[in-house]
Amino acid sequence: MTYCIGIRLNAGLVFLSDSRTNAGLDQISTFRKMMIYEKPGDRFIVMLSAGNLAISQSIRELLQVEALARGPDEDPLTIWNATSMFDAARVLGATVRRVYNDDGVALQAAGMEFNTSLILGGQIKGEAMRMFLVYAAGNFIEATRETCYFQIGESKYGKPVLDRLIVPTTPLDTAAKCALVSMDSTMKSNLSVGLPLDLLVYRADALCSDQIICVDDGNPYFQMIRNTWGQRLQEAFDSLEDPYWDGGNTRYPLRVASARYEPMRKITTPSEKII
Amino acid sequence: MTYCIGIRLNAGLVFLSDSRTNAGLDQISTFRKMMIYEKPGDRFIVMLSAGNLAISQSIRELLQVEALARGPDEDPLTIWNATSMFDAARVLGATVRRVYNDDGVALQAAGMEFNTSLILGGQIKGEAMRMFLVYAAGNFIEATRETCYFQIGESKYGKPVLDRLIVPTTPLDTAAKCALVSMDSTMKSNLSVGLPLDLLVYRADALCSDQIICVDDGNPYFQMIRNTWGQRLQEAFDSLEDPYWDGGNTRYPLRVASARYEPMRKITTPSEKII
Repeated sequence: MTYCIGIRLNAGLVFLSDSRTNAGLDQISTFRKMMIYEKPGDRFIVMLSAGNLAISQSIRELLQVEALARGPDEDPLTIWNATSMFDAARVLGATVRRVYNDDGVALQAAGMEFNTSLILGGQIKGEAMRMFLVYAAGNFIEATRETCYFQIGESKYGKPVLDRLIVPTTPLDTAAKCALVSMDSTMKSNLSVGLPLDLLVYRADALCSDQIICVDDGNPYFQMIRNTWGQRLQEAFDSLEDPYWDGGNTRYPLRVASARYEPMRKITTPSEKII
Repeated sequence: MTYCIGIRLNAGLVFLSDSRTNAGLDQISTFRKMMIYEKPGDRFIVMLSAGNLAISQSIRELLQVEALARGPDEDPLTIWNATSMFDAARVLGATVRRVYNDDGVALQAAGMEFNTSLILGGQIKGEAMRMFLVYAAGNFIEATRETCYFQIGESKYGKPVLDRLIVPTTPLDTAAKCALVSMDSTMKSNLSVGLPLDLLVYRADALCSDQIICVDDGNPYFQMIRNTWGQRLQEAFDSLEDPYWDGGNTRYPLRVASARYEPMRKITTPSEKII
């Protein structure tokens, strides 16, 4: 499996991906899931991929050369000449469909799903930053102010912390920290997500980034997150009042009168014979 | 969907279930998922159910009367005369298989899976408390000291907090609080899990419990959890150092020399023509 996060903030974009792939539990490998397509000063595009690795790798490769036919006087549309991220996402969608056309039937014959999902985010000169979630059918949705992040892969374990902490005004470094916490929770609960991680932070309008790192076992910052977060969570948890069952001196009693609901129970007296 | 938690601690058992069921997003109802089977002073057994509601309700009903044939001189085995929780779990497994025999073919013809999972926990006089997770095939596993809780239904969102905080020595009230936090995180991230909740705490060797409540919108304690946990999580998160990209005055630099991994990037110069 995989876990990737893409976040679109007012200040920029944050991308984080793990690198574990597995075909069964006894066939675990390391493959990177983040790919950067850039033309310095003109465009900076990042793709994260989840799903079948053969499909992802084909898409990643073909996206560099995919060309959508346009009018007779126009060059075909590519990620290198697209003037909007929306058009870049269209090129990615077409790439997904090309791989489906190439491999879909054979995969189906082998009883396998055409399983892929992709996050595409970045900026093209003259346009604001944008981020898209591209489905296996090649269609896509865009991140907005209301929903400013996407996850692909094993997304559920790490979703609550993102839901609670990420808003469009979150600073980039804070969002990177939050993505790392979300990844740590996911790795703790699911074996199919693992190190090393790729972390990339893009600052709005830079059209390039040097904030790209690979986080492995020895990364001091991520080690600190792993060691500290569980402890801080425990402290936060301990600071919540324990439940008082019977009133007592609390503003928050657990047992309150409610005629509405009674437990469902089947009570048998010791002497009653059922059979 | 559904979310239920069963925890087996040294001090007793904790059960928590939501009550939302859905068949599509536009058909949402409230059904309880906790059922108590008790013979005061002799046995106290709790069942939580997830999956297809028609299956769960059939199982819940038939479990009261299911009887497994034994030797010629013995009464059939039921949950009312079982002398161990293991035998009670066998009766439940047989009940699951009976419902499968009744409904499995018709469900398959309708394109539906025989989808059910159940937590069965409790105590029978003369034996320690035990807890089982029963699968749709009627087979089951038992909670141990190493893995002392089970979840069914939408289990991923709320798993990290249980993984981090629950051990067999956790006090009952603390575990109840933790289950409520796990439920709160799940409800925040997934619409298919909803109020009211059934919460039950069983103290070891009591063979009865009066710590059973239904938590709805107006419950002061759960309101406190919902209002406070997000805020405490934010504070815990804020207390983690933000990442420093370039060394600086920190013990935990994010960017450290690592020749091992370079980002995967495709760089095109502005003048390069791809197509």
